Amino acid sequence: MASTTTAAEDAAVARDDQSGPTGAELGADVPEGYRSEHDLLGDRLVPDRAYWGVHTLRAVENFPITGRRLSTNPHLVRGLAAVKLAAARANRELGLLDGERSDAIEAACQEILAGGLLDEFVVDVIQGGAGTSSNMNANEVIANRALEVLGRRKGDYAALHPNDHVNLSQSTNDVYPTAVRVATVFGIEDLLAALVALEDAFAAKASEFRTVVKMGRTQLQDAVPMTLGQEFGTYAVTIGEDRERLREASGLIHEINLGATAIGTGLNAPAGYAETACRHLGEVTGLPLVTAADLIEATQDMGAFVHLSGVLKRVAVKLSKICNDLRLLSSGPRAGLAEITLPAVQSGSSIMPGKINPVIPEVVNQVAFEVIGNDVTITMAAEGGQLQLNAFEPIIVHSLHESITHLTAACHTLAERCVSGITANVERLRSTVEQSIGLVTALNPYLGYAQATAIAQEALASGRGVAELVLERGLLTGDRLDELLRPERLANLGA
Amino acid sequence: MASTTTAAEDAAVARDDQSGPTGAELGADVPEGYRSEHDLLGDRLVPDRAYWGVHTLRAVENFPITGRRLSTNPHLVRGLAAVKLAAARANRELGLLDGERSDAIEAACQEILAGGLLDEFVVDVIQGGAGTSSNMNANEVIANRALEVLGRRKGDYAALHPNDHVNLSQSTNDVYPTAVRVATVFGIEDLLAALVALEDAFAAKASEFRTVVKMGRTQLQDAVPMTLGQEFGTYAVTIGEDRERLREASGLIHEINLGATAIGTGLNAPAGYAETACRHLGEVTGLPLVTAADLIEATQDMGAFVHLSGVLKRVAVKLSKICNDLRLLSSGPRAGLAEITLPAVQSGSSIMPGKINPVIPEVVNQVAFEVIGNDVTITMAAEGGQLQLNAFEPIIVHSLHESITHLTAACHTLAERCVSGITANVERLRSTVEQSIGLVTALNPYLGYAQATAIAQEALASGRGVAELVLERGLLTGDRLDELLRPERLANLGA
Amino acid sequence: MASTTTAAEDAAVARDDQSGPTGAELGADVPEGYRSEHDLLGDRLVPDRAYWGVHTLRAVENFPITGRRLSTNPHLVRGLAAVKLAAARANRELGLLDGERSDAIEAACQEILAGGLLDEFVVDVIQGGAGTSSNMNANEVIANRALEVLGRRKGDYAALHPNDHVNLSQSTNDVYPTAVRVATVFGIEDLLAALVALEDAFAAKASEFRTVVKMGRTQLQDAVPMTLGQEFGTYAVTIGEDRERLREASGLIHEINLGATAIGTGLNAPAGYAETACRHLGEVTGLPLVTAADLIEATQDMGAFVHLSGVLKRVAVKLSKICNDLRLLSSGPRAGLAEITLPAVQSGSSIMPGKINPVIPEVVNQVAFEVIGNDVTITMAAEGGQLQLNAFEPIIVHSLHESITHLTAACHTLAERCVSGITANVERLRSTVEQSIGLVTALNPYLGYAQATAIAQEALASGRGVAELVLERGLLTGDRLDELLRPERLANLGA
Amino acid sequence: MASTTTAAEDAAVARDDQSGPTGAELGADVPEGYRSEHDLLGDRLVPDRAYWGVHTLRAVENFPITGRRLSTNPHLVRGLAAVKLAAARANRELGLLDGERSDAIEAACQEILAGGLLDEFVVDVIQGGAGTSSNMNANEVIANRALEVLGRRKGDYAALHPNDHVNLSQSTNDVYPTAVRVATVFGIEDLLAALVALEDAFAAKASEFRTVVKMGRTQLQDAVPMTLGQEFGTYAVTIGEDRERLREASGLIHEINLGATAIGTGLNAPAGYAETACRHLGEVTGLPLVTAADLIEATQDMGAFVHLSGVLKRVAVKLSKICNDLRLLSSGPRAGLAEITLPAVQSGSSIMPGKINPVIPEVVNQVAFEVIGNDVTITMAAEGGQLQLNAFEPIIVHSLHESITHLTAACHTLAERCVSGITANVERLRSTVEQSIGLVTALNPYLGYAQATAIAQEALASGRGVAELVLERGLLTGDRLDELLRPERLANLGA
Repeated sequence: MASTTTAAEDAAVARDDQSGPTGAELGADVPEGYRSEHDLLGDRLVPDRAYWGVHTLRAVENFPITGRRLSTNPHLVRGLAAVKLAAARANRELGLLDGERSDAIEAACQEILAGGLLDEFVVDVIQGGAGTSSNMNANEVIANRALEVLGRRKGDYAALHPNDHVNLSQSTNDVYPTAVRVATVFGIEDLLAALVALEDAFAAKASEFRTVVKMGRTQLQDAVPMTLGQEFGTYAVTIGEDRERLREASGLIHEINLGATAIGTGLNAPAGYAETACRHLGEVTGLPLVTAADLIEATQDMGAFVHLSGVLKRVAVKLSKICNDLRLLSSGPRAGLAEITLPAVQSGSSIMPGKINPVIPEVVNQVAFEVIGNDVTITMAAEGGQLQLNAFEPIIVHSLHESITHLTAACHTLAERCVSGITANVERLRSTVEQSIGLVTALNPYLGYAQATAIAQEALASGRGVAELVLERGLLTGDRLDELLRPERLANLGA
Repeated sequence: MASTTTAAEDAAVARDDQSGPTGAELGADVPEGYRSEHDLLGDRLVPDRAYWGVHTLRAVENFPITGRRLSTNPHLVRGLAAVKLAAARANRELGLLDGERSDAIEAACQEILAGGLLDEFVVDVIQGGAGTSSNMNANEVIANRALEVLGRRKGDYAALHPNDHVNLSQSTNDVYPTAVRVATVFGIEDLLAALVALEDAFAAKASEFRTVVKMGRTQLQDAVPMTLGQEFGTYAVTIGEDRERLREASGLIHEINLGATAIGTGLNAPAGYAETACRHLGEVTGLPLVTAADLIEATQDMGAFVHLSGVLKRVAVKLSKICNDLRLLSSGPRAGLAEITLPAVQSGSSIMPGKINPVIPEVVNQVAFEVIGNDVTITMAAEGGQLQLNAFEPIIVHSLHESITHLTAACHTLAERCVSGITANVERLRSTVEQSIGLVTALNPYLGYAQATAIAQEALASGRGVAELVLERGLLTGDRLDELLRPERLANLGA
Repeated sequence: MASTTTAAEDAAVARDDQSGPTGAELGADVPEGYRSEHDLLGDRLVPDRAYWGVHTLRAVENFPITGRRLSTNPHLVRGLAAVKLAAARANRELGLLDGERSDAIEAACQEILAGGLLDEFVVDVIQGGAGTSSNMNANEVIANRALEVLGRRKGDYAALHPNDHVNLSQSTNDVYPTAVRVATVFGIEDLLAALVALEDAFAAKASEFRTVVKMGRTQLQDAVPMTLGQEFGTYAVTIGEDRERLREASGLIHEINLGATAIGTGLNAPAGYAETACRHLGEVTGLPLVTAADLIEATQDMGAFVHLSGVLKRVAVKLSKICNDLRLLSSGPRAGLAEITLPAVQSGSSIMPGKINPVIPEVVNQVAFEVIGNDVTITMAAEGGQLQLNAFEPIIVHSLHESITHLTAACHTLAERCVSGITANVERLRSTVEQSIGLVTALNPYLGYAQATAIAQEALASGRGVAELVLERGLLTGDRLDELLRPERLANLGA
Repeated sequence: MASTTTAAEDAAVARDDQSGPTGAELGADVPEGYRSEHDLLGDRLVPDRAYWGVHTLRAVENFPITGRRLSTNPHLVRGLAAVKLAAARANRELGLLDGERSDAIEAACQEILAGGLLDEFVVDVIQGGAGTSSNMNANEVIANRALEVLGRRKGDYAALHPNDHVNLSQSTNDVYPTAVRVATVFGIEDLLAALVALEDAFAAKASEFRTVVKMGRTQLQDAVPMTLGQEFGTYAVTIGEDRERLREASGLIHEINLGATAIGTGLNAPAGYAETACRHLGEVTGLPLVTAADLIEATQDMGAFVHLSGVLKRVAVKLSKICNDLRLLSSGPRAGLAEITLPAVQSGSSIMPGKINPVIPEVVNQVAFEVIGNDVTITMAAEGGQLQLNAFEPIIVHSLHESITHLTAACHTLAERCVSGITANVERLRSTVEQSIGLVTALNPYLGYAQATAIAQEALASGRGVAELVLERGLLTGDRLDELLRPERLANLGA
């Protein structure tokens, strides 16, 4: 399939056939370029070039929701191929699958793992059926590619069957959650790398701004002095903490339910299958996967995804807070705080010449809002699971995937196009410290809260400086005052 | 019941009795100060001073969740009494209830409508059972008070029964939603009044600041001039719009399902009951209530509450945005924007003397966040309804009630303790306009976007003024420039 | 641009150029197939086949977030073209734009309105800058197409400039919100049509099942009889109500701020422009648009979008509840309620042969969860607006657009592939009524609540029928009982 | 203060004084029963019996939002007292506070830790000021009680001052977050115990129902056999997992920022204070607390609370899913699944005699919805933090506290009043297995997917049994079939 619009066209063609004679009735009269496939609803024509089959065709017709296909989530497609490969190896090892078929399935899976056949994954990302259509799409593509490897025609399922061979010892209900976990782990790895890049960018700025004194603020009101390096340092620290939490949450995703089959009882999977398949999947993916202790629980449980989404939301909250700060600190250029300058990356306005806007933090804020909304979607979908299965895992996967990939892009963009180019307006920052009333806090231990309050009130009312008033009232000597109010001391820079 | 802790104590006493002999077994041996009541689970002792009975007792024991009782929602208690009163009048009018019992029920309901017996409404605000326990609490309190009116002892249900007489022609499933709607309408009236107060406070400031010129900002960057009066005027306008939307949403709440009984088919309610009861309820409450066209739909539908909560969320979003602005504009006093000063209402810090914080906007922000969270709670509860009923209406009611009452308090607090005392820092505001680069926008039509951009860039780089650079380059005459850059013109003050 | 991947490639090419000599430095040495464009950051090479220019290029590079372009929202692209067309006509009418340029701009806009040039709208759907990049993308595409119409080369902006002519009298801050509103109104029209289709499908079933008696349920427990027609009728009614609410909310979106320019003061727009442009936009779109009374408020206000999203959430809640019901009522085929049968649309399982799952309701549930999550995203973005503008409108637009289009698809799918093929299991339904204990409710008025409770308890304990026990106890005659328990009477079918 | 309504009355009295002469003006004329206190806004009369002072009074007046006081969160009051005690010990150890004052403060704190003076904590739970009012309420109560211990009058702050002595080396911005963490840890301990109780209740039922065979369901459709013991076992397992996650999240809360003072630079706290105070607080509370590595980050960071709330949401999702299952499995008694029976705890209906509803699961569902909504509130409040502080910590604390205490109550209620009394309808469960079509899945490996599908389709169409059809077609022998379809084998009971 060269073109990305072909599957929809194919489905349309097939749909038109619905009112006409079925493939079975047509018998030898299957039109050129098509093959006939059968499922429990009857026969359907499938374009011969398609590796997907009748189950996929039904799904494409049933779920015309987003126009976005499974292929837009390459991690998940690879996850499905990895599971199918591991299952084939386990089935062969346990004597359920002969070498010829196993080798052919392996060849097809390896091709997908290498990025091939991606466009054959055509079902909509939002789909009913708890992932069955995604699993069947994989079963069909792998079966038909394997048939070709065996020198046979697509659709010759008597030789190698999507369900009886590719899906052997499996159910959607263990394949799909397992593939999703593998895909999610890979996605999280990307995000962790992006967080490292962002953390490093902030740490570099923290170092660069180490001695730049400024006023700290609480509740947007002038508080006490600190340095801009300290301020940027907190961003690095906080992202580092989130990264740790994310790594922990990713650990939960390494627990899989492969071998559970339909509801966790392992029906139709041979003894030893779960362990064998898990071992093979670990080898295929390079991940330290483990089989869940209780497969019935693991099959219905969305807890790890809810948990992971909660941690992604935490990351989003932090990023949004940081971007709010960056936008605030760079407000101006003349009527704002103007403490830092963000690098200009595009013109800011179609009407206001020369205006530069904080567009990179703004786009990160928006991704954060999306992630927070996705968390609610995931929560509702998880809550809606019933009895032995959660039918809504596709929307969970879709939302998680968007959260992860958009956060990854947002972190890289923020690091590269904004943070690394930030400059400090050093003079302005120092002057705000010198004019500050908040300095009086440092005199609290020497004057007492009540006396210090009176000084602050007079400074505010008169527009005069705190030091001036303290000296005028003879409360402290000039030298003592200079020492007490030294910005570096106030910012605890030695610490 | 004088003390608010008594019901819990009573329930505890009763609970202790559970393992002992039941009231029925005790026979004549009911202890002093108690009466024995019966339900389908058996007999229980109820403190004789209590107007509530065995059904309420069970509910208190079953739902020890929040420690907050139905009595904390007086609008709802009155709503229940109003419905019971209207039902009694309808039952009498339709010949189902004799005058003596009807009069006694009416007397009890009127007492509750006047604020009496509030402490007798003791079930937890979060309760299972779709409101059954709230309805039974009302049935029992009214029955026992009516029995006293009739000169009988509490518990003498053969004479007047909580179910057979007080609940006659009714079901929780029509009584409770109807009472909730009446209560909600009254709550919304309070909120609308608070919004008017806040709108007026902003409008007064808009008038006061009509000619105070300042820089407008987009994306926190200096944009083009406006007046502080225009800025505050938008707050009045936006609140006024929300008020309109809220009034419309309140209209939806005037549609009731009284007469639906259990599932909307009206089983056990006589012909004409729904219309008659609705008419009486309209008279009792003074509200233009109407009976829903499809009672089955109305009985299961939470749409109007979801809708109303969505509008409350809209109000919350606006209030939060306004408070964010107020906190930002008043940031300082020296290192912030310092465009306006909020009235000081308390010391701001336990360590920083003289610090004044924007505590009133901050508390309003927090109420807004609560309302937005409540909207999610209400959404989930509404989504969870099944078939002919939504079992989760109590949490919907509780969350709505909190949203409404907290927003009402927040609006009054914001108007009285903050907005009405705001002052403008006029000189600072004017100087930011004069130094602004954003002025160049006004020259766009005369210089073209490219030329204007070059001027803006040089102004930013050099720290010089836009007018100065334009004159230097001989692009416009001084007089022309003065006219073009007149702040009042830029702010479109004439409009 | 024939291929959908070209813009990313182009951007990559252009990105590679960044470290090399700029176009300006290159002078006459602009490579074959490129043109050089200039903005405040310097010069950049743009592929000559591209209608977009340097501002769009910067944006593509700055926002590599979702990989989804503005072109995935055709309503919005058309909205932008409609606004640009209306503005050009207004500018011409008011004497600001000559006929030649105006005609050329009109030709370009009409081409876009007819679906042309869609692939030229290449900026990411999630973008910083409050929509500036979307507006500039439109300005550049229209300018370059208009230049071609004028017989000139792309990039010859001296002849017709994206800002000075296409964006004349405009700012992103009035163009973008106005275009979004136009786009949203068109999207809502699609959704309303889908809701009508779904409502009709349920109404047809309500009619078909008019006399099919069944047990109604409250709190999942058997309650009292009703008909399946009544049950399906509520779905039609409730969707009809939502449709009304949606139409009302759509009305709010008809209020536009065109003419507001940067912050609502109308700076740089001539007198009469707002009214003139609104009139022309009304003609271009065929919509009854009105100009907001307070343009400053309208420019910063996201209230109508929050409101609309709240109503979409209401629709989602209802659809999800209905689909929950459909899945529950069709549970089985043997161990479930099995009251109705949904049409089979695909095989249900890769392991369980013959299993049919309710995949269509399931996909609708998932869309509902997505819409509810989007509402939180929209809420946060709206709350995050500051002072004279909300910088986060792009994520609001994106989330709204997804909610609307996915709901539209979900409604059509549900109507066509599920509801219209539902069949009733009539015998099973009738037998549950006959065995029901809930019948005793109908005897409540004749036996009293206490006596009826005792009958119900014995029926439950013994497994016997209510009628049998009532006769045995001689409480009512057989004839009377038959009349009282007639299902059609109980279901209030006459009403 | 004996009565819980006194503080509001006091505040009202004090409020009335506002327009009259201030205490200062009154001079010696302070009325009987009052004392005069001073802050930066002037003088106010405080009831002499009150331990709280002028700062608390202002706060009570400023935040009339919920009517619920700090005293409704006893864990937090104790947390504040613990911090004040640890600070006093650290100040004494470091030579900043003399033994007499230190002892008096310790005595007051110990009294509060023992549950005393709770009613003196009168500020509203939702308050502006980032917790300053909560901290000042504690400072004032402790100072006044300590003054009494010292034999002095309340209000004699020259002898022992709320700020200069009780708050010595502290700021709200380290005291409040630290106290909140201590309180939260204690709250989580309660919840963990409740989760253990619930887990045990489910585990006991899993054991009791170990051999009760039933049909497992996926997507509400009959799937393959399992046991009721397995089903209940998953609930125990899943709660156990959540418990582990909650314990991990609680670990994050053990990291405190005491010693950070205003913004984390430790201004006004002596060298060594942070470590010393942390050590003392660890001793006072018995908790393994640690000082955060970066106090500036720790002072502004709400990450641990967002994280914890995310885990609470996970718990809520699981509880809600479990309760949905319990309500579904117990649906009936005749027209539902009727697989299990929940214990009757109250009458279910005011109109339907004998109806028993699943009121306990229903109330747990509602708590879960509340927790999920609270998570959104917490998320927004966390996102709204700016620069060196999050001003919205009070709503975070309030929402967390409600989530924790309501979940705790819900778990105990569910365990005691529902789960422990559940019974299985063994016969019905077994018969659904025997009639099931899902049995055919077990024959899949022997018949192939296509053949098995045909059998399933015929069984469904004809109403006949799977085994019968297989025998009729001669596909397997009777003995073989019996072995393959043995329920215990299918449920994998040996595993």
